Amino acid sequence: MGRLTMRRPVRRIRLDAGETRRIDTLAVEEPLEIRVGGQPLAVTMRTPGHDVELAAGFLVSEGVISSTDQFRSAIHCGGPGTSGGGENTYNVLDVALASHVHVPVAELARSMYTTSSCGICGKASIDAVRTVSAFDVAEDATVVDAALLATFPDALRAEQAVFEKTGGLHAAALFDAHTGKLLVLREDVGRHNAVDKVVGWALLEGRLPLRGRVLMVSGRAGFELAQKAVMAGAPILAAVSAPSSLAVEMAADAGLTVVGFLRGPSMNVYAGFERVQVDAAAPVVTA
Amino acid sequence: MGRLTMRRPVRRIRLDAGETRRIDTLAVEEPLEIRVGGQPLAVTMRTPGHDVELAAGFLVSEGVISSTDQFRSAIHCGGPGTSGGGENTYNVLDVALASHVHVPVAELARSMYTTSSCGICGKASIDAVRTVSAFDVAEDATVVDAALLATFPDALRAEQAVFEKTGGLHAAALFDAHTGKLLVLREDVGRHNAVDKVVGWALLEGRLPLRGRVLMVSGRAGFELAQKAVMAGAPILAAVSAPSSLAVEMAADAGLTVVGFLRGPSMNVYAGFERVQVDAAAPVVTA
Repeated sequence: MGRLTMRRPVRRIRLDAGETRRIDTLAVEEPLEIRVGGQPLAVTMRTPGHDVELAAGFLVSEGVISSTDQFRSAIHCGGPGTSGGGENTYNVLDVALASHVHVPVAELARSMYTTSSCGICGKASIDAVRTVSAFDVAEDATVVDAALLATFPDALRAEQAVFEKTGGLHAAALFDAHTGKLLVLREDVGRHNAVDKVVGWALLEGRLPLRGRVLMVSGRAGFELAQKAVMAGAPILAAVSAPSSLAVEMAADAGLTVVGFLRGPSMNVYAGFERVQVDAAAPVVTA
Repeated sequence: MGRLTMRRPVRRIRLDAGETRRIDTLAVEEPLEIRVGGQPLAVTMRTPGHDVELAAGFLVSEGVISSTDQFRSAIHCGGPGTSGGGENTYNVLDVALASHVHVPVAELARSMYTTSSCGICGKASIDAVRTVSAFDVAEDATVVDAALLATFPDALRAEQAVFEKTGGLHAAALFDAHTGKLLVLREDVGRHNAVDKVVGWALLEGRLPLRGRVLMVSGRAGFELAQKAVMAGAPILAAVSAPSSLAVEMAADAGLTVVGFLRGPSMNVYAGFERVQVDAAAPVVTA
């Protein structure tokens, strides 16, 4: 509970100043299953902490409740005071509402990736990706040059026609890891949609799996974006901003390379270190 | 189709240089309902264009398909060549997959806010918010001083303990519109979760509706965040980045004030103009 950050080893690459190995701090991402009266309603990928508030706010946003007296209590499944068994991951929260509150379970219930045990956790989400994907990115021996990666953000921005006008669109793009050529770019108000459009383009063009490609996103790299990369068979995910803990853990497990804070000549590699190649002449310092 | 941007009137306020009225460009956001074989699977808020790719990529991400031959065709419901009736909004896409593909409809089907007619559109989503919310933000006569609003981004950042360490968290906060006091701040890897945590805090504290409060978010203001503001009865939504077209249209309809690009002394007001007060001595220029 309240695990806001996690520390992970990272390859910190600065093209002009060489490379360091250090421990970096990541924002923790874990699934939370929200139940009402024992009925699963939704799974959301969230930063642990303030889970009761999150569930209460979710129910307000969905129009289920609007006043304090409609909310009775909430308890983590398997937590103290319940009869639930198994390891408590604090990732399942069961809410009790006042008896007169109507809960439209059928309309609200979201897709459940994981089984409805008390043990829902990042590990289960990670396992689900490996099981479901038709492609094994761990088998992809693609290597990308850090100096080539460094050119991607500018190429992305140059192609982003709409962003300049509105400042409101996320972009996703595919690059060839060997030539650095930008193959396709899509923009959307939703980060997930931009990636889905790129993956869909590849499917329709007969280009899946995305062997030898870098999937690049203009924002952050959460679990679901890393999942989309693995599902499409892309060996490398590069992001302009930070990755989440669960994205990096899943990537390490699946053999996906995750590059974060890719901003020109500066970048961090969080998983799949071996796929990013730095000029051998550059110094390596262990911090 | 391909309506990437939309033009809307905006109040552009610069504390040191007065105010201008101009036309600004917004990223378009509209719902897309994805169907497979006529069965509704998901509704996603997206930027129109490349809808077939979006649907195909969604199905790859969900593990339903992984090769081109599994995807037969896709057509906008009510579009040319179909027998569907009614106005075609190009917001419902029906996908035909190869007959051997198993579609786990029950597991995938997402919450449907709107009826499953061909006419799903932003208007329907907007109407749904007004119908469902327990509170009427249009009735809230709150006014906020632009100079006070200008202090919120710094207050937000000062309170954001985790962001400095990871660069990976979204923040949402509540401010008092009269005193400028920060009442609560929550951080999360998910922008929606951060807002839900704030709204949930308010519910648990017996502070709903959020009359006289400003809901502030560290990123962009899409439809769903504006929806959360209205559901919680907050009269003003302020964002560090851009709003989407549908967020602004819904806000205008519901009486919600939307402030975007709030960055110190500079901000744009997109809806509910009357709630943001500028020192009367400042010049107003119509561009």
